[in-house]
Amino acid sequence: MGSIVAKNRKHLVLATGRSHPELARAVAREIGTELMDVDSRTFANGEIYARFEGSVRGSDAFILQSYGRPVNEWLMEQLIMVDALKRASAKRITVVMPYYPYSRQDKKGRGREPISARLIADLFKTAGADRIMSIDIHASQIQGFFDGPFDHLFAMPVLLEHFQHTIDPETLTVVSPDMGRVRVADVWSDKLGVPLAIIHKRRDPLVPNQVSVHEIVGTVEGRVCLLVDDMIDTGRTIVKAAEALKKNGATGVVVAATHAIFSDPAPEILNSDFIDKVVVTDTLPLRDEQRFEKLQVLSIAPLLARAITEVFEDGSVTSLFDGAA
Amino acid sequence: MGSIVAKNRKHLVLATGRSHPELARAVAREIGTELMDVDSRTFANGEIYARFEGSVRGSDAFILQSYGRPVNEWLMEQLIMVDALKRASAKRITVVMPYYPYSRQDKKGRGREPISARLIADLFKTAGADRIMSIDIHASQIQGFFDGPFDHLFAMPVLLEHFQHTIDPETLTVVSPDMGRVRVADVWSDKLGVPLAIIHKRRDPLVPNQVSVHEIVGTVEGRVCLLVDDMIDTGRTIVKAAEALKKNGATGVVVAATHAIFSDPAPEILNSDFIDKVVVTDTLPLRDEQRFEKLQVLSIAPLLARAITEVFEDGSVTSLFDGAA
Amino acid sequence: MGSIVAKNRKHLVLATGRSHPELARAVAREIGTELMDVDSRTFANGEIYARFEGSVRGSDAFILQSYGRPVNEWLMEQLIMVDALKRASAKRITVVMPYYPYSRQDKKGRGREPISARLIADLFKTAGADRIMSIDIHASQIQGFFDGPFDHLFAMPVLLEHFQHTIDPETLTVVSPDMGRVRVADVWSDKLGVPLAIIHKRRDPLVPNQVSVHEIVGTVEGRVCLLVDDMIDTGRTIVKAAEALKKNGATGVVVAATHAIFSDPAPEILNSDFIDKVVVTDTLPLRDEQRFEKLQVLSIAPLLARAITEVFEDGSVTSLFDGAA
Amino acid sequence: MGSIVAKNRKHLVLATGRSHPELARAVAREIGTELMDVDSRTFANGEIYARFEGSVRGSDAFILQSYGRPVNEWLMEQLIMVDALKRASAKRITVVMPYYPYSRQDKKGRGREPISARLIADLFKTAGADRIMSIDIHASQIQGFFDGPFDHLFAMPVLLEHFQHTIDPETLTVVSPDMGRVRVADVWSDKLGVPLAIIHKRRDPLVPNQVSVHEIVGTVEGRVCLLVDDMIDTGRTIVKAAEALKKNGATGVVVAATHAIFSDPAPEILNSDFIDKVVVTDTLPLRDEQRFEKLQVLSIAPLLARAITEVFEDGSVTSLFDGAA
Amino acid sequence: MGSIVAKNRKHLVLATGRSHPELARAVAREIGTELMDVDSRTFANGEIYARFEGSVRGSDAFILQSYGRPVNEWLMEQLIMVDALKRASAKRITVVMPYYPYSRQDKKGRGREPISARLIADLFKTAGADRIMSIDIHASQIQGFFDGPFDHLFAMPVLLEHFQHTIDPETLTVVSPDMGRVRVADVWSDKLGVPLAIIHKRRDPLVPNQVSVHEIVGTVEGRVCLLVDDMIDTGRTIVKAAEALKKNGATGVVVAATHAIFSDPAPEILNSDFIDKVVVTDTLPLRDEQRFEKLQVLSIAPLLARAITEVFEDGSVTSLFDGAA
Amino acid sequence: MGSIVAKNRKHLVLATGRSHPELARAVAREIGTELMDVDSRTFANGEIYARFEGSVRGSDAFILQSYGRPVNEWLMEQLIMVDALKRASAKRITVVMPYYPYSRQDKKGRGREPISARLIADLFKTAGADRIMSIDIHASQIQGFFDGPFDHLFAMPVLLEHFQHTIDPETLTVVSPDMGRVRVADVWSDKLGVPLAIIHKRRDPLVPNQVSVHEIVGTVEGRVCLLVDDMIDTGRTIVKAAEALKKNGATGVVVAATHAIFSDPAPEILNSDFIDKVVVTDTLPLRDEQRFEKLQVLSIAPLLARAITEVFEDGSVTSLFDGAA
Repeated sequence: MGSIVAKNRKHLVLATGRSHPELARAVAREIGTELMDVDSRTFANGEIYARFEGSVRGSDAFILQSYGRPVNEWLMEQLIMVDALKRASAKRITVVMPYYPYSRQDKKGRGREPISARLIADLFKTAGADRIMSIDIHASQIQGFFDGPFDHLFAMPVLLEHFQHTIDPETLTVVSPDMGRVRVADVWSDKLGVPLAIIHKRRDPLVPNQVSVHEIVGTVEGRVCLLVDDMIDTGRTIVKAAEALKKNGATGVVVAATHAIFSDPAPEILNSDFIDKVVVTDTLPLRDEQRFEKLQVLSIAPLLARAITEVFEDGSVTSLFDGAA
Repeated sequence: MGSIVAKNRKHLVLATGRSHPELARAVAREIGTELMDVDSRTFANGEIYARFEGSVRGSDAFILQSYGRPVNEWLMEQLIMVDALKRASAKRITVVMPYYPYSRQDKKGRGREPISARLIADLFKTAGADRIMSIDIHASQIQGFFDGPFDHLFAMPVLLEHFQHTIDPETLTVVSPDMGRVRVADVWSDKLGVPLAIIHKRRDPLVPNQVSVHEIVGTVEGRVCLLVDDMIDTGRTIVKAAEALKKNGATGVVVAATHAIFSDPAPEILNSDFIDKVVVTDTLPLRDEQRFEKLQVLSIAPLLARAITEVFEDGSVTSLFDGAA
Repeated sequence: MGSIVAKNRKHLVLATGRSHPELARAVAREIGTELMDVDSRTFANGEIYARFEGSVRGSDAFILQSYGRPVNEWLMEQLIMVDALKRASAKRITVVMPYYPYSRQDKKGRGREPISARLIADLFKTAGADRIMSIDIHASQIQGFFDGPFDHLFAMPVLLEHFQHTIDPETLTVVSPDMGRVRVADVWSDKLGVPLAIIHKRRDPLVPNQVSVHEIVGTVEGRVCLLVDDMIDTGRTIVKAAEALKKNGATGVVVAATHAIFSDPAPEILNSDFIDKVVVTDTLPLRDEQRFEKLQVLSIAPLLARAITEVFEDGSVTSLFDGAA
Repeated sequence: MGSIVAKNRKHLVLATGRSHPELARAVAREIGTELMDVDSRTFANGEIYARFEGSVRGSDAFILQSYGRPVNEWLMEQLIMVDALKRASAKRITVVMPYYPYSRQDKKGRGREPISARLIADLFKTAGADRIMSIDIHASQIQGFFDGPFDHLFAMPVLLEHFQHTIDPETLTVVSPDMGRVRVADVWSDKLGVPLAIIHKRRDPLVPNQVSVHEIVGTVEGRVCLLVDDMIDTGRTIVKAAEALKKNGATGVVVAATHAIFSDPAPEILNSDFIDKVVVTDTLPLRDEQRFEKLQVLSIAPLLARAITEVFEDGSVTSLFDGAA
Repeated sequence: MGSIVAKNRKHLVLATGRSHPELARAVAREIGTELMDVDSRTFANGEIYARFEGSVRGSDAFILQSYGRPVNEWLMEQLIMVDALKRASAKRITVVMPYYPYSRQDKKGRGREPISARLIADLFKTAGADRIMSIDIHASQIQGFFDGPFDHLFAMPVLLEHFQHTIDPETLTVVSPDMGRVRVADVWSDKLGVPLAIIHKRRDPLVPNQVSVHEIVGTVEGRVCLLVDDMIDTGRTIVKAAEALKKNGATGVVVAATHAIFSDPAPEILNSDFIDKVVVTDTLPLRDEQRFEKLQVLSIAPLLARAITEVFEDGSVTSLFDGAA
Repeated sequence: MGSIVAKNRKHLVLATGRSHPELARAVAREIGTELMDVDSRTFANGEIYARFEGSVRGSDAFILQSYGRPVNEWLMEQLIMVDALKRASAKRITVVMPYYPYSRQDKKGRGREPISARLIADLFKTAGADRIMSIDIHASQIQGFFDGPFDHLFAMPVLLEHFQHTIDPETLTVVSPDMGRVRVADVWSDKLGVPLAIIHKRRDPLVPNQVSVHEIVGTVEGRVCLLVDDMIDTGRTIVKAAEALKKNGATGVVVAATHAIFSDPAPEILNSDFIDKVVVTDTLPLRDEQRFEKLQVLSIAPLLARAITEVFEDGSVTSLFDGAA
């Protein structure tokens, strides 16, 4: 008899909810592992059940969920998975959400509104999440909503590499589709070393709550315009911006965005004559009817795989996470 | 100049999510107040938004949500409403959920399962709920999942009053559809002063995971059987129980349950020849296609209204909340 | 000079309060280690003191306490031990309570009652416990009272093995002593492949709060009856059940239970003519005066030892923890 | 129909555990109210149950418990009562503990010790206590162990008034029985305007852990010595101090203490020839066999009653709570 | 004897740290009350002490602190004041910080950075703050850093009213001094119904981390430019922007900002020929040497007084808090 | 493809705030490592920024800060550093504060005072600290203010060793400068095996709040007096005590203290004729103007280095941490 000592080894568990299995499989492939089997089901009455089929005790677990529609179903699924991991003694639980849900409700614009983006962070903390990993969150401040490490990844290098091979910077102008996105456009303009323009929706003070002027601040005539945004939802803002650009003399309009939410009528109207190409990543799943001819989808899996590996190995991933703001 | 003193008055705010407006309006009517207007919406990408249209500062707020399908949508809606109330300085927030969602996932039956019913309680606590009010929760222990007051109401008096006027106790036997519901049947048997029988699903030890025997423990021949349960989901257990009862000589089979979940194929199969009548309450909304001829729905609104009023007035509502367990 | 790196090893610390030293020593023996010395004392005024005599820094500590009388003394002792471990930098603290104290106060049966079983879970969380391990808790939902991993072990295999060698299943009927224990009896009936009967205490509706009928639901005449329960406290329910069984023609009555609380007058009345044998485990200590001729005590130490070892080694112990209820 | 508004009134609930009913009744009498009925019981297996018999919703509740033996029983009883109040929607819960239990384990004197006094504060916070009220806590820092208001009352005025009527200050010297209590003695010396002496137990450096010298620092010859302490437990320190004083020429020795723990052999040895009188308060219950001829017990009830009333009425009680230490 | 009932009245306590007594007095005067006396001191070793001189039990307390230099001293002072209030049983504690300190460290721009603005919110929560009130926070998302109500006030109406009386909108253009402030400028442009221009600092991609181009997006020639920002710290950005505007043909440059931090060399360089007038509020104290000829300071006290009064009275202040985002 | 497993190694990170770089460097040297680079700055407006320049993921991090003036600046700096570490996924964060700031505000001496020493513990917990390490805290109870491991080190061995080589115990008397420090003096007296004396400041009861008598309890005539204290702030108490000792016949007065706060006018008045020597440690930085001829400073770095190493290696450091109380 004597003292019992064990080496403290940790093993990586990678699992996914049911929202975007292709992305999860691609990430697993990049890492060189397999997805943990999860028995995940929705019962007849709409309640969700999830059980891990393999051992998770003492593991360093990463749970991937992609927040396309139906957002709230996937939220409960991921929360339930985290709860199951916590109760099964996983050592560390990282919630991987390539697109952070409810990120646009990040402040009270008016009284008696929720701050749902903070609520999301708190819900996952409560369920048992130790860390969050996300890509191009709508406002960088959302990192501060979570009480713990938040790995904020940037898709820009993925998109940038694409454009550096396909567009001539001499004729290019980066355009922000509205005032709220100017910072992102500013970084693009800076990285590409090209001019910046901004679409400014000004209201008529005599007609409350109504956009009356759609002016372009900066020069776009004779330029190829790269409209950049973190996400494209219904696509209306982007299409109107593209229209304004073309009408003001732009010779081409290319759209770049990280998150292709593509709610109706996005797939239809993005296929507009005002737009020449739309480049997005696969942080969100796209159904066939959400795809269209001018669309190009870049894979985000290598970025996620690299980040997960470095977090698992406690590597210094600051270079990976540093960047645009 | 001098000291500023104010009387500390509180006002009742009653609001509802979008799951079951009829019930909410009926409760408001019973209380003698009106529902607070809430701007509640689902955006194109599936995210939910809710904003209170009237003043809630310092209020004693009750938020009603009924957990029919889609459960997870209504969960996020109610969580978001609680968050908005918390940030708008409501003094006390009571979450009213006539049917407690995920109540059947109240323990780990196997390893690596979640305990979603506890998770639900924690999510609402995190969002800002001070109290929960619910009716006939699946397991009484769920009260202990919430760290705060949990008002557990009983629908039995509502149902009981109905049967005391419609069935002769002399010929009646209360029946539990399976082993898990025996305690509820026991209370019914006790309150009505009539015998008890139990349906026992026994497995064949040589054939794992397969029900082989469907035996009835107790006497049902020549009796009118009252099958009682807290909820009816797909209806399969109830219909099989009714069939067994009729085949064993029962002269009538009446079903009583609080929560009419009625997932498919419940509405269809409950209209069976083995069943003479189904009596439920309106804790959950029923669409037209979920209703059928033999169904009778009793209103739960008076019970909820009385409970809310007494909680608001700090009355002694123990008599109301005491009862079956 | 350079960077300092250390291998992260963990060592197992097993210690016990003063409630049931025999069990703790048996568990240590099974694991192949020794109990950590603890200077544990009760001062003249009734306050308890506990200090660990060996190193616990960075350890994976398991603290065993058995909740016989005086329950509240042992509670404070174990809470104090957990506090000492937390402040001495133990890495992980598992509270091992073979019998979960206050498990019968797991819900509010009436208004203004406590939910002491939840309180127990919260007190240990507050003191610093990371995990709980317990056997055959009174209600499985109690797992959900703890905000963290709860390893729920089942003694049934230990008891079952005993009976499979000593009783002929052909003549056996499993009996639940009351309605509240039907689920446990159901599992036994299922595992042994034998019929089930239930003792039903029905009240006379004209005489409130008084048991008037003690009926047996199912067939017991000519059968050997195995009365099963999770615990035996005063023994009154069990003895009355045995009496009813014998009077209804049972040829033998054997009692099986995990937790032998044996409060007065259990040791005396269990030695009844209506009962042929009582089989329990040693989750609780038995004083000499609590033992009697027909009693047989099985050792629970191997089960606890195996569970602790697997938790320490982060093994997959789901097979161990899966099972009944 | 319209908005529902109620005046926000609060009512005082005063209840007690079973440790010291005389004190609780005296406090109620002083306040002019009655004790709330509580159904408080210890079951056969040692577990405690408590249920409030009257309405506590929205109340300002004060729960009194006195921590004589068996300390741990009374602790669980009071924790359970707080839990019941919290779940029954009491608005504010004040734990009144005239003697703070485990107050001497207020720091780690050595490694791997608990800090039980902090643990006590956390346990009550977890159970639901909003505030603590106590008298003459062993170390004033214990106030800081509780995360919330802690009303620290001083018994000195009660004792002081007694001595101002019974002892001539001209011949009086205040004496501290050891180094740890010097601060208290200092305040007494100051309030009475009389000299101070100290008993100093010095160890012989050659004989570890053994008291070798019992020296008196200051002058006691020809003086009446008032030995003051916050509590008397076994009485050994006090009696040895009294002996040293008499042997050094003191003409009288009177002992004053707030908390009469009186563990064995205190009642016997305090009735020593070296001591002329012992004056204590009734913060702790005294059984008949703990009383002796030279003992005088002063009532603490008026102090507690005044403090509770002022807290209830949000009065400015700083004058009451200010003072020594 | 009988039950004791009290009306639940609340009184307003308004107190201030030592950072900006003029503002606090002005707010008290507007409300019609007096500042609570606080004994606030810095000891010789730099530690701060604060004690409330009047009763705060049960009060609705508002503690005002203005975060000019030395920021960290005032932080500790306000935290200590909140701690004192919490321990003295204030009912509700509102931290009033007209300028939210550390608001520019609201996200991780690079790895291994703090999010100090979140830390600030957590520190006050921990100390005992129930609510925060602030004006024109640097990023609206900071509201979500606090787990509770956050009243976000807008100084724009105060500034706007000033300009509506002093500048002709026909010749006016609103200018954002950099990309990060475009949203604020957008709201000004919208409210005044005048055009918008933006100063764009573009980096030369060949020369890392160095501003190479200072271009103006929009038209400023012949216009009076209103440079708007939430705060002016060293003033360098504003002065360079003004210079660029004048050099591009602006006929006048007026600067408007809420928070006049005015670190060196702001007071000196703001008195530049490129700037015609600087209008700020008194959210921060200004020493004589920080004032200059072209500076005009508007009082923020009426806004704060109105907000405090409405919060105290649970009025509907949404109209007050709604507005720019 | 297969499962991914990694050894769990931890590396030590040692970093410091800007308060006392010499001490930090000395500690690093003793450990045999280097200080992690930190970009720590104070901005023009007084806000502090800190960023770790090297990898801290998964590290066992120790952050040293010494709390000389300006205390509150260093507090925020260390809090911000802890926040940055938490968000950068350090595995364990130990706050090393050789002198615990605000340790003298460890209780409420009067109503409406803060307990700032508890607040400090809570602030660090909130920021993300897992453990605290400190030396000779003013009251041992402060250990209990932190909810987690608190390593309390003792400088006495360092000081003791010095005196054992420099003073003859035959002629030595240990003196406590006031009643509050008697316990520390008692331990010194015990360890050195020499007599004890105490300075007693007694008030005249007729002249409230005024010290009227400065009496010495014990014998000092013809003795070398060793005045001991945990800290020296303004030095006034010590100098008055020394004066009283010399006037009562002491042949020498030597002062020993752990923490040399040395606020004005300490450096000046300690150089008094009544004092022969002052021996302190370097837990706090001393500027040149704070040093004087009779001062001797001993290095505390070896003690800190040994403690950090043992904590990092999970060694049994009880012998190190045990001791005086």
